[in-house]
Amino acid sequence: MSSIAERINKLREKMKDNKVDIYIIPTADFHQSEYAGAYFKAREFMTGFTGSAGTAVITLEEAGLWTDGRYFIQAANQLQGTPVKLFKMGEPGVPTIAEYLREKLHKGGTLGFDGRVVSMSAGTLYEEIAAEKQGHIFYEKDLVDSIWKDHPSMSKEKAYALEEKFTGESTKSKLARIRKVMKDKGATSHVFITLDDICWTLNIRGNDVAYTPVVLSYAIVTMDKMHVYLDEEKLSGNLKETLIKDGIVFHPYNDIYEDIKHFTKKEKVLIDPVNVNYAIAKNIPEYVETIKEANPAIIFKAIKNETELSNIRKAEIKDSVCHVRFMKWLKENYDKIDITELSASDYLDGLRSSLEYYIQPSFDPICAYGPHSACPHYSSSKETDVRLEAGNFFLTDTGAAFKEGSTDITRTYAIGEVTEEMKKHFTLVAMSNLRLANAKFLYGCTGLVLDILARQPFWDRGLNYNHGTGHGIGYLLNVHEGPAGFRWRYVEGETHTLEEGMVITDEPGIYIEGSHGIRLENEVVVRKGELNEYGQFMYLEPVTFIPFDLDAIDVTVMTEEDKKLLNDYHATVFEKIAPYLNEEEKEWLKRYTRPVE
Amino acid sequence: MSSIAERINKLREKMKDNKVDIYIIPTADFHQSEYAGAYFKAREFMTGFTGSAGTAVITLEEAGLWTDGRYFIQAANQLQGTPVKLFKMGEPGVPTIAEYLREKLHKGGTLGFDGRVVSMSAGTLYEEIAAEKQGHIFYEKDLVDSIWKDHPSMSKEKAYALEEKFTGESTKSKLARIRKVMKDKGATSHVFITLDDICWTLNIRGNDVAYTPVVLSYAIVTMDKMHVYLDEEKLSGNLKETLIKDGIVFHPYNDIYEDIKHFTKKEKVLIDPVNVNYAIAKNIPEYVETIKEANPAIIFKAIKNETELSNIRKAEIKDSVCHVRFMKWLKENYDKIDITELSASDYLDGLRSSLEYYIQPSFDPICAYGPHSACPHYSSSKETDVRLEAGNFFLTDTGAAFKEGSTDITRTYAIGEVTEEMKKHFTLVAMSNLRLANAKFLYGCTGLVLDILARQPFWDRGLNYNHGTGHGIGYLLNVHEGPAGFRWRYVEGETHTLEEGMVITDEPGIYIEGSHGIRLENEVVVRKGELNEYGQFMYLEPVTFIPFDLDAIDVTVMTEEDKKLLNDYHATVFEKIAPYLNEEEKEWLKRYTRPVE
Repeated sequence: MSSIAERINKLREKMKDNKVDIYIIPTADFHQSEYAGAYFKAREFMTGFTGSAGTAVITLEEAGLWTDGRYFIQAANQLQGTPVKLFKMGEPGVPTIAEYLREKLHKGGTLGFDGRVVSMSAGTLYEEIAAEKQGHIFYEKDLVDSIWKDHPSMSKEKAYALEEKFTGESTKSKLARIRKVMKDKGATSHVFITLDDICWTLNIRGNDVAYTPVVLSYAIVTMDKMHVYLDEEKLSGNLKETLIKDGIVFHPYNDIYEDIKHFTKKEKVLIDPVNVNYAIAKNIPEYVETIKEANPAIIFKAIKNETELSNIRKAEIKDSVCHVRFMKWLKENYDKIDITELSASDYLDGLRSSLEYYIQPSFDPICAYGPHSACPHYSSSKETDVRLEAGNFFLTDTGAAFKEGSTDITRTYAIGEVTEEMKKHFTLVAMSNLRLANAKFLYGCTGLVLDILARQPFWDRGLNYNHGTGHGIGYLLNVHEGPAGFRWRYVEGETHTLEEGMVITDEPGIYIEGSHGIRLENEVVVRKGELNEYGQFMYLEPVTFIPFDLDAIDVTVMTEEDKKLLNDYHATVFEKIAPYLNEEEKEWLKRYTRPVE
Repeated sequence: MSSIAERINKLREKMKDNKVDIYIIPTADFHQSEYAGAYFKAREFMTGFTGSAGTAVITLEEAGLWTDGRYFIQAANQLQGTPVKLFKMGEPGVPTIAEYLREKLHKGGTLGFDGRVVSMSAGTLYEEIAAEKQGHIFYEKDLVDSIWKDHPSMSKEKAYALEEKFTGESTKSKLARIRKVMKDKGATSHVFITLDDICWTLNIRGNDVAYTPVVLSYAIVTMDKMHVYLDEEKLSGNLKETLIKDGIVFHPYNDIYEDIKHFTKKEKVLIDPVNVNYAIAKNIPEYVETIKEANPAIIFKAIKNETELSNIRKAEIKDSVCHVRFMKWLKENYDKIDITELSASDYLDGLRSSLEYYIQPSFDPICAYGPHSACPHYSSSKETDVRLEAGNFFLTDTGAAFKEGSTDITRTYAIGEVTEEMKKHFTLVAMSNLRLANAKFLYGCTGLVLDILARQPFWDRGLNYNHGTGHGIGYLLNVHEGPAGFRWRYVEGETHTLEEGMVITDEPGIYIEGSHGIRLENEVVVRKGELNEYGQFMYLEPVTFIPFDLDAIDVTVMTEEDKKLLNDYHATVFEKIAPYLNEEEKEWLKRYTRPVE
């Protein structure tokens, strides 16, 4: 295997061949996905850094890697002995990528990158920087691929149909709704490349991205056809035939980049500037009018239909039952047998994996004990695995992808007796979760308006958790799904009005570095409540039913109202889950859902 | 006096002379002010309708008036016998003004309006409609003025200096800060026309708009001068001299419209699209680059400095003392002497008007008894005046403009015994006010994030109040001041991050049509609290100290936490106000601030 230094030198040769002065390699696939497959790990190949976020910038003299605070230590270790210099993003005195490019690009120079892995906004910024220097952009070729001898091939996993008993709506009907939006906006074509939007429209799923059951593809919807660009080997004869009947026309995966160059002046193209890559945006001729709006599928798929909702309720009950059994096993065995983060994780997986319609975990599970749980994105591994011992918390943030929808559930369990402070923190998290879950609000609210209900127990005490309170969750698609969520800071694409049928997580937490971390995460469904002279009231329907560990509850922190919320939730947990348990399990659950006073 | 029909016919003559097919007359002055003086009541002159909101549209055949739900009845009455047709905005089947214009304007036709009274956005819309018809815009002449025989002259009231002991910052310093923003944004000139921004910068006040102590003027700030356009007769010799020393250059009021036509290509002009009229925007030559940003003065003046804050605290205490005396008088006399809405209003005014540094009421007072109080914008008059009788609420929403700042205070008093339902409602309003006032939050929050703290007592019970929870308040300027406030719906220009030193009202309410209305309004100051590893915490400092009428409190509605908030507030009210009272008053206040259990 070649060394990093050798790879960089080879890339520089290619850069010279193509008259490129600086080459930028982000961490992304062609589809602006949150997670990317092995084929797309060019940044890792070029630098040796394996973290999930970072951008490499290679000039003819220097090589740099920009990454954020989560990865400073790991990146420093992995870059040791390579010519790649670490740029710690956000640290004082460290230039941003844009500042670095502005400094290093000489007059008339050329900035290069693979336009398919760069977002439209980043590409536009690079274009501006090049223009400031009377320079050029080179974006139509992947220079890393040309030197990457063992470049993993692109995923060739099979796609499969998701039947209407799971999706609740036909592709025909979904396309009709998309075309209605196009018509209203005056568009004749709609180009979209986000894999979940395409799979949702086609009612198919696949296996091309870890944990995300999607199919690598691009799409163009016109008023009578839907052109889908993918490797046709992914489709069985049957599936292909069905889709062709729905007006789908198939093309080779990469052909879209040429095809869109030939749009005529008559076309008006609906395109989502936030969800498209630079090469797609750039290849649409300038004379073609574009209508810049969110992909219509984004809001359609976020609002789950009645079939999806009834499936999701089933999936959540199944997963809740697994969690209850897991909790019982943990409580009864932590001091009898050796349980580690990984073995507990396996035990929980084992409970789930035999269930009907189970596909796979819906994301990389987090199972963290003690100080590990204080890191919200901890990932257990053989190197870091520890035994669960009395005196701290064990946090599991895991999920399952069923044909009946995806779950994303976090529980934190007291292992043995925990300290008073830990109990106080745990109780605040439980209060926070339940206060938000019991919100009643007028239609028109965004998650921005509701978020403080979850923050207040913390903010009142000078505490906080440094992440959003909740995100939308896809139906057997992306576990993080827009366009709505609960957070107090405005984030583009995540602040849509809360619409009936949206499924959102409710997951406050608290993290005390080096000591303990707590998070409690349920899914809630946005529902219509009373309609009266003041407007349409809305509420949140809980669908996850697992106890909040009473061994870690300190009632002295709670108001009377908080106690009532907890008791009501626990009564519902018992009512919903007991029918699936044997007598001994029932008795145990009764105890762990008893009212507090 | 000529009839409305005659006026409309005369206007049509002028329209024909100027080749105008449709003429639009909104309700506005030249400065996008919330309130306008008598000179600017052209819409009233043309239609006879006296309401505060409405737009007249006159074609060569028809005359229409658009107004909103508040004024349907009044407008119908006032338009009777005139040729003006009422268009009820928002009612089904009623065209919007834009729809009407699109229907009525013939191909190649001309839309006319006085570009000085039309906002940039409205003017741009009219321009688009004309362009769709290959037509024209006529905006440089006020056609109504040419037929208005007794057109009131523009206000000629004197301006006066507000000394630095009140403003806390010199004009020089304010200009330096404005120029810093201009420089950062790359601007060479800044044109602004909002009267409060100009008066704030110049540290002057005037009397040209009812209740709003501002001076009719326009301004252009360059890197070394500030050009002010106003009637110089408003300035005393001394004031003028002082201002000239600060680099102010004076010009006749209307000259700005010509002057800005002569900007050279070298100028880069900072202009606020939300706060400028159409004629100003239009008269800047197209070849001049404009930088579209909020007036820098908007955020500067919203963040009160330490001098202003200490003055505001004094003003609020003075007004609170008046309110306490008023409340005592009301409670002790409603059943002994004839008290009406107007006589009570006069009594409160009388208490205030003798105070040091008092200037005038800060807005048109609302003093409403019983069903009147259910109308949030009720204005008492001789025709509607009623006696205060036992069994309902008396609501006063009034304010005073002092040299130490403006107040805006609402209290609702039980007159005699009120019903259980009334008490329940009153208690919810008190809880709502205090929950918001006691918010603790991280720096970066907007009022959008906090608003639900005030709404929750209502939303939890399927109730609501159909107005914002709070607005910024100017320092002896506009009583409604941007750019921050408390509201759950996004409103452009009112959703700025809450910054230390902002003064905002906290005024939840409840309105039961035909029965009763309740509102409780205090001012709060945004303050920095604890700074820790989670960030900068913020809190709200109350500055208004008047009891929430305990005769209308129903403790059974309150949580233990709500009771504590009320008792804490009342203890502070007593502590702050008692020193200004005589023994008898003190004893009374002690009773009306006693703790509830």
